Amino acid sequence: MRDFTKGHPALALNTASLGHNLDGAGAGWSPERVIDACAARGFGGITFWRREIGSRAVAIGDRVRAAGMQVVGLCRTPFLTGPDVPAALADEMKAAIDMTAALGAPVLTIVTGGTEPGLRGLAGTWDLLAERLAPACDRAAEAGVRLALEPLNPMFGGNRTCLFTVADALEICDRLNHPALGIAVDVYHVWWDSRLSDSLARARGRILGYHLCDWLAATSDMLLDRGMMGDGVADLRAIRAAVEGAGYTGACEVEIFSAANWWRRDPGEVLDVIASRFRNCC
Amino acid sequence: MRDFTKGHPALALNTASLGHNLDGAGAGWSPERVIDACAARGFGGITFWRREIGSRAVAIGDRVRAAGMQVVGLCRTPFLTGPDVPAALADEMKAAIDMTAALGAPVLTIVTGGTEPGLRGLAGTWDLLAERLAPACDRAAEAGVRLALEPLNPMFGGNRTCLFTVADALEICDRLNHPALGIAVDVYHVWWDSRLSDSLARARGRILGYHLCDWLAATSDMLLDRGMMGDGVADLRAIRAAVEGAGYTGACEVEIFSAANWWRRDPGEVLDVIASRFRNCC
Repeated sequence: MRDFTKGHPALALNTASLGHNLDGAGAGWSPERVIDACAARGFGGITFWRREIGSRAVAIGDRVRAAGMQVVGLCRTPFLTGPDVPAALADEMKAAIDMTAALGAPVLTIVTGGTEPGLRGLAGTWDLLAERLAPACDRAAEAGVRLALEPLNPMFGGNRTCLFTVADALEICDRLNHPALGIAVDVYHVWWDSRLSDSLARARGRILGYHLCDWLAATSDMLLDRGMMGDGVADLRAIRAAVEGAGYTGACEVEIFSAANWWRRDPGEVLDVIASRFRNCC
Repeated sequence: MRDFTKGHPALALNTASLGHNLDGAGAGWSPERVIDACAARGFGGITFWRREIGSRAVAIGDRVRAAGMQVVGLCRTPFLTGPDVPAALADEMKAAIDMTAALGAPVLTIVTGGTEPGLRGLAGTWDLLAERLAPACDRAAEAGVRLALEPLNPMFGGNRTCLFTVADALEICDRLNHPALGIAVDVYHVWWDSRLSDSLARARGRILGYHLCDWLAATSDMLLDRGMMGDGVADLRAIRAAVEGAGYTGACEVEIFSAANWWRRDPGEVLDVIASRFRNCC
């Protein structure tokens, strides 16, 4: 038997860190192989992406738990606003929520989508976001899961997000005031915010996810050049202290999109480095 | 004689919009040709970059004024923090300030530089920024010019800036409390900020520059894919109203870095489009 006392119960893998099998990244590892490799290294949990699950949500969730870990969350909802909202938004949202429940994951992450076509600035898009979120929150509550609004770095404004700070996400939470709605905090997106510790203090009870990587001083690609913890300029210890100071007791989920570096390496090596950096830098 | 009543006295060109002769952009136009082309279209002023001026600051400034326009500003200081601070920072800063004065420009823009090597987060770098800015403010006051701290979009954190919002820039102004120090507001960098109107209201008397372009919904390059006013999602009219509501009476300076689009066009066409969009979208 594994000795889990030597593991990292607070550490979770977001499978995106292994390239989730896009373009040959992640060496084509199946969810089962990822589960076994994380368990062997004492990880506490895994967050998956919908594309990896298909119709096998129950089996994959059971396998994670049989390996002594948690399914931490599922990525992610369809866009609710902006140029890329799916035609069948309600149906796709329901499918994502149902998949989250079938996995036994407590949280589904929301990336909102961008500025609604024909609008400018934030106000009108925020109104639409709140309107479209309300039925999703009800559906999530019925399914026994929660939805985590994730603010993104302002470089993703326009077509990916209309929420740029923890304060923005809390503003939408305040408007809806729904028990199934909270926020996710990703250091890549929020490390630069001089208001972050104040905003996190206001987020008490509403932080549903904490995502780790690092911001490289010379970031070469907006989407796919995230750094490993310790290789960048984010103050990871201070951010974690503020997140946990606001009452968060969940996993620290490592999510590193890195097309030119970490996705090109052997997934086992990447998992080893993640575990080592988590011990020493976070 | 030109009929300036038909011009746009509030409109200024930042020469970066013509590619400032990099990689063949801007068709190799000299400062003199840019001056004549702006004057012919009724622009109110021009902001130059140091590399375009060389030792001809007095002559170029005089030519702008003889053409009935203002020199609005000069871009920009060397980095004060981060990995790319010049070895002779004080000397280079003095040269930039002296060039601003020789041009007859009232304002020199500051891009701060990024996180100081060895540090994480913002606090330590902000301390260094304030320490290094203080003598530059004194020097600027002696030369009769002002320095404008420009916050940049958070995607430029790490190696280009440590100030991400108008509120951040005002925090540094508050610390130094120097009459030569203010801020520059660029819509590209701040359009996404839900606190922007509140921050601008607090900036009364300290806004030294207002920079125009647009944020394209699908931005393909962090540095060089800015949009022409009207082609993006920034609420340009609302931001200008807030800037002018805070007492700003200076120029609206169009600054469009666009390697794949506007820099490939004839500079005369670009100036015509700028004037037209300024009338209709800003």
